[in-house]
Amino acid sequence: MNEGHLFVVSGPSGAGKGTVCRRLLEEVDAVLSVSMTTRLPRPGEVEGDHYIFTSAEDFERAIGADELLEHALVYGNYYGTPKRPVTDKLRGGTDVVLEIDTQGAFQVKERCPDAILMFILPPSMAELRNRIEKRGSETEEAISRRLGEALKEIELIERYDYCVVNGVLAEAVAKVKSVIVAEHLKTGRGASEIIKKYKEET
Amino acid sequence: MNEGHLFVVSGPSGAGKGTVCRRLLEEVDAVLSVSMTTRLPRPGEVEGDHYIFTSAEDFERAIGADELLEHALVYGNYYGTPKRPVTDKLRGGTDVVLEIDTQGAFQVKERCPDAILMFILPPSMAELRNRIEKRGSETEEAISRRLGEALKEIELIERYDYCVVNGVLAEAVAKVKSVIVAEHLKTGRGASEIIKKYKEET
Repeated sequence: MNEGHLFVVSGPSGAGKGTVCRRLLEEVDAVLSVSMTTRLPRPGEVEGDHYIFTSAEDFERAIGADELLEHALVYGNYYGTPKRPVTDKLRGGTDVVLEIDTQGAFQVKERCPDAILMFILPPSMAELRNRIEKRGSETEEAISRRLGEALKEIELIERYDYCVVNGVLAEAVAKVKSVIVAEHLKTGRGASEIIKKYKEET
Repeated sequence: MNEGHLFVVSGPSGAGKGTVCRRLLEEVDAVLSVSMTTRLPRPGEVEGDHYIFTSAEDFERAIGADELLEHALVYGNYYGTPKRPVTDKLRGGTDVVLEIDTQGAFQVKERCPDAILMFILPPSMAELRNRIEKRGSETEEAISRRLGEALKEIELIERYDYCVVNGVLAEAVAKVKSVIVAEHLKTGRGASEIIKKYKEET
């Protein structure tokens, strides 16, 4: 009855969904799901914190065993969300935030129709290019490909419940936080419990 | 395209919807619609600010001329919302907040399906009784009748989009504010505009 809410934060690579989520988690009572990936760690990334790093072989075994809530192959690497930790936390009444790729977001929505999908937009395509360039790890060809992918993803925003432009980080975080607060105020699932409480008091 | 949003704040008499709305309007960029009523002004109430006070004759003429967005007869007095000021502001891009009775809230939802309905709950039935008693203007019979009405209204919360408990005023106001922020982030009507913007930038 009092299950946690599942919030999916997605958006194009470079829009800043990772930064938004990390800052968000300092301010709301929720846990961030740790994704599993077959890509190599970037400098500074910590196993079990940023990602669970694994082999393609192990990843494919997890797919076969239906142990993933979603998974996607992005630029040749697998990314996925182990199902069990998420469903355990939701059942225990804790909100879970998934920071995932757009392919994964739709898979989650299909499996968990109550999931709330948020799309993080860059303030502009020029700014998105800047951010990707600043990472410094991409060739011009890769940057162009990412920008093309970003636009394709933006064209699907109608499938998301909410859109947040990440221009000023603190503002974007405050907006995502408002969505979380508002979703908890929705009458939906709690209505009969609420009515019961007031009836008993009368 | 960029029309304002219509927020309806309703709930039982004594739940504090009036106080919540007044405080809210200090913090968000929206206008509070002024209701028209045939009841007598309470001490301190100002014509055109708290209500437009009018005669039953004039009120019934406005009903007949379809000049009201909603109206209701409550404890022998008419209450209603003049339509024109609301629709003008919405068309101009301004959010409008309606603080109205539950009968009126459903009429508004019927006429304006995009309206967002919020229900303000008292923290408990005992606290609701306290608040009504503090007004000092009610007989015990009237208080009992109000509590009975309140419970009937609470039983209809499923028809509202959001429920906010008004225990600590500042918290209730912050919650209503989050709903307003979140509703503006909903992808819905703005999606094609957003997609167009990013496409043009590419």
